[in-house]
Amino acid sequence: MEDCIFCRIIKGIEHAFIPYMDDKVIVFLDKYPVSKAHTLIAPIRHYSNIFEADDESLCRIIKLARIVAKIIRDKFGADGIRIVQNNGSLAGQVIFHLHFHVIPYYRNSKMVRYRRTLDHWEGEEVSTILREEIRRELGENN
Amino acid sequence: MEDCIFCRIIKGIEHAFIPYMDDKVIVFLDKYPVSKAHTLIAPIRHYSNIFEADDESLCRIIKLARIVAKIIRDKFGADGIRIVQNNGSLAGQVIFHLHFHVIPYYRNSKMVRYRRTLDHWEGEEVSTILREEIRRELGENN
Repeated sequence: MEDCIFCRIIKGIEHAFIPYMDDKVIVFLDKYPVSKAHTLIAPIRHYSNIFEADDESLCRIIKLARIVAKIIRDKFGADGIRIVQNNGSLAGQVIFHLHFHVIPYYRNSKMVRYRRTLDHWEGEEVSTILREEIRRELGENN
Repeated sequence: MEDCIFCRIIKGIEHAFIPYMDDKVIVFLDKYPVSKAHTLIAPIRHYSNIFEADDESLCRIIKLARIVAKIIRDKFGADGIRIVQNNGSLAGQVIFHLHFHVIPYYRNSKMVRYRRTLDHWEGEEVSTILREEIRRELGENN
């Protein structure tokens, strides 16, 4: 999977802000966020879409999605959160490595129409908070 | 949760097309589908959103979402499938009982801009196929 950008991120060949990674799943920031703390969760193993995925990876991902959503609500003040997973270009899939979006909505800021590039300082700030809080949540619950 | 429409559907007080239900989860058709076979998956227990949900319900739901998505692709010919879960009205949540949308996209039909009411014959047709195939999938995998 040399050509897959997400596989390259997982291998460390491509840069991304990665608040969490283990042998099954990765949590990383969308490089073109629609809002602050727009986060992606994906399996380490390359599956093109949800049809191919194994149950264990899906369970790990959705449990992390709940944790990440909760952190974004509590620490970034999101007023709403949408979890989205697209399969097929017609449904909006762009990168063909299974991933779930966790997309925050803020009452006082409009969603961007054209996605901006995540800047370094925001990436560091969001990533640091997510890293700390994910560890705390996993430590408490496991 | 007398006022919750999804709790009323689960209790059989309100009608819905229900291809699958057990003691943890329900699969039912959206009454106002954006496309053919637009399906909802929810926990039996009333959680307002994903923040409140237990891990077991989330795992059951996401595994069923994969199964339902696969059936919709294979049996209804969907060219793309989006899985969406909204938390908070700002993120598009309308019914405050946790649920996941499985939304099919078809190459040759536009998504409706204004959601129509599901008609009886389509409900029966979609429900019958989903019921049969979900049972088959669960029988094979469990």
